[in-house]
Amino acid sequence: MLKLHHHPMSAASRFVRLVLGEYGERAEYLEERPWEKRRDFLALNPAATLPVMLEDDGPAIVGATVAGEYLDETRGVFQRDKRLLPEKPLERAEVRRLTEWFLGKLDSEVTRYLVRERVFKLEMSADAGGGPPDASAIRAARANLKHHLRYLGWLAESRDWLAGPRLSYADLAAAAELSILDYLGEIPWEKEPAAKDWYMRIKSRPSFRPLLTERVRGLPPVHHYVQLDF
Amino acid sequence: MLKLHHHPMSAASRFVRLVLGEYGERAEYLEERPWEKRRDFLALNPAATLPVMLEDDGPAIVGATVAGEYLDETRGVFQRDKRLLPEKPLERAEVRRLTEWFLGKLDSEVTRYLVRERVFKLEMSADAGGGPPDASAIRAARANLKHHLRYLGWLAESRDWLAGPRLSYADLAAAAELSILDYLGEIPWEKEPAAKDWYMRIKSRPSFRPLLTERVRGLPPVHHYVQLDF
Repeated sequence: MLKLHHHPMSAASRFVRLVLGEYGERAEYLEERPWEKRRDFLALNPAATLPVMLEDDGPAIVGATVAGEYLDETRGVFQRDKRLLPEKPLERAEVRRLTEWFLGKLDSEVTRYLVRERVFKLEMSADAGGGPPDASAIRAARANLKHHLRYLGWLAESRDWLAGPRLSYADLAAAAELSILDYLGEIPWEKEPAAKDWYMRIKSRPSFRPLLTERVRGLPPVHHYVQLDF
Repeated sequence: MLKLHHHPMSAASRFVRLVLGEYGERAEYLEERPWEKRRDFLALNPAATLPVMLEDDGPAIVGATVAGEYLDETRGVFQRDKRLLPEKPLERAEVRRLTEWFLGKLDSEVTRYLVRERVFKLEMSADAGGGPPDASAIRAARANLKHHLRYLGWLAESRDWLAGPRLSYADLAAAAELSILDYLGEIPWEKEPAAKDWYMRIKSRPSFRPLLTERVRGLPPVHHYVQLDF
C-alpha cells in the first residue's frame, strides 16, 4: 500500500496524486504542514519538503519527480499506451524537461510565492513566518505568471498535449500548478484560449476530481474552480 | 556524437561531465555564458540554464537530471556494475533524492550565490547584473554551507559512497558542487574529516581530471585545489 505525505496546496503533491489517479492506484493520504517541521516528518525527509511517498512503510521516496520516476518504474512500465512517460529516451527527456519546467521554474517563480503569501501565512505561527502577505512578492509572482501562461498557451497550441501526442507527466505537472493558481483566482484564462482549452480537457479527467472537492479553511475557491466548462 | 553546452563554473554542467567521464563517453564541449542570453542558446533552452546536451544534433536534452536520466537509459543500462544508477527502484529513489539534494538544494542555498557573487559578476556587464559582490549573500551562503557539509560528512561516515555501497549519481552531484566551492577556497575541510576523505577518493578518479585543470580568468584556485592528497 502506498502512503503519501502531502498538502492540498502543494503543487508537487498534487502532481503525484494525479499520477496515482491516472494509474488507478489507491493510497493513504496524510496531510502535512511542512513549516511545522514535525520531528517524525523530518526523519522521513530532512529537506522538510512535500510530497514524501512510502510503499509498504519502506524507505521514503522524496519529492515529486523522484516519486514520478519510481511510479514509472513500478507502475507505468505495465501501462502500455496509458504510460505517462513515453518509451523513447529523447521523448522522455522532453517530458522530463517540461515536468521540471512546471514543478521547478513555474513553481519557484509563481505558485510558491502566491501560496505562501495568500494561504500558508494565514496558517503559520509568527515564529514560522506567518503574518500579513507581502504585496511586492504577490506582484512579482503575477508578473511572472503572464510569461508562463504564454509559454503554456504556445505549447497547447502546437501539440495535442503539452509534451507531444499523448498525455504525460508534463500535463499533470502543469495541471497541478495551475489547479492551485486557479483555486486562488489568479489565472486570466480569457487571454490564453489554447491554455484554457487544454486545462478544460485535463480538468474533466477522473483523476482530477479529488482536487476539485478540496477546500482551504477560510479561503473558498473562485466560483469557476469546479466548473468543467468555465 | 554528444555535444554539451556548459560553463566551467556551472555545477550542473560539471555533474554531466563527470557522468560522461565515468562512462568513457567523448563529447564536444561548448562554453556558454547563459547570462548573455544568446538567441541560438535560448532556442535550445528557453529557460536559459545549463547544461544543455545534444546527441547527433537532435533535440535539446535540458538540465543535469534530465541529461542524467537520458545517459542512464542510453549508456548506463549497458554498464553492469559500473552503472551510476542502481537497478532497484527504491535504491534509485535514494540516489535521485540525493542528486536533487546536491544539484537543487545545496546549489540554490550555497553554490549559486557564491559563484554569482564571486565569479559571474566579474564577467557580467552592468546590464546583465554585473558589479561588486553582495557581502550579505556571501555570508548567507557560507552559513548554509556549514549545514550541508555536516550532512555530507554524516552520509560519508555512514555509507561507503553517499547513497550506498556503490559510486552513483549522488556522489557525482555532490562532487560537482564541492569542486566549485573548493576552487573558490570556500570549504573548511578540517571540520569534516569524513567528507574530506570521501572527496579525496572521488577527486582522484580519472573522470575528475579535466575539472582540475580548468582555470577562471583572473581568479586562480586555492593552492590545494589540484592536490589529490590535501
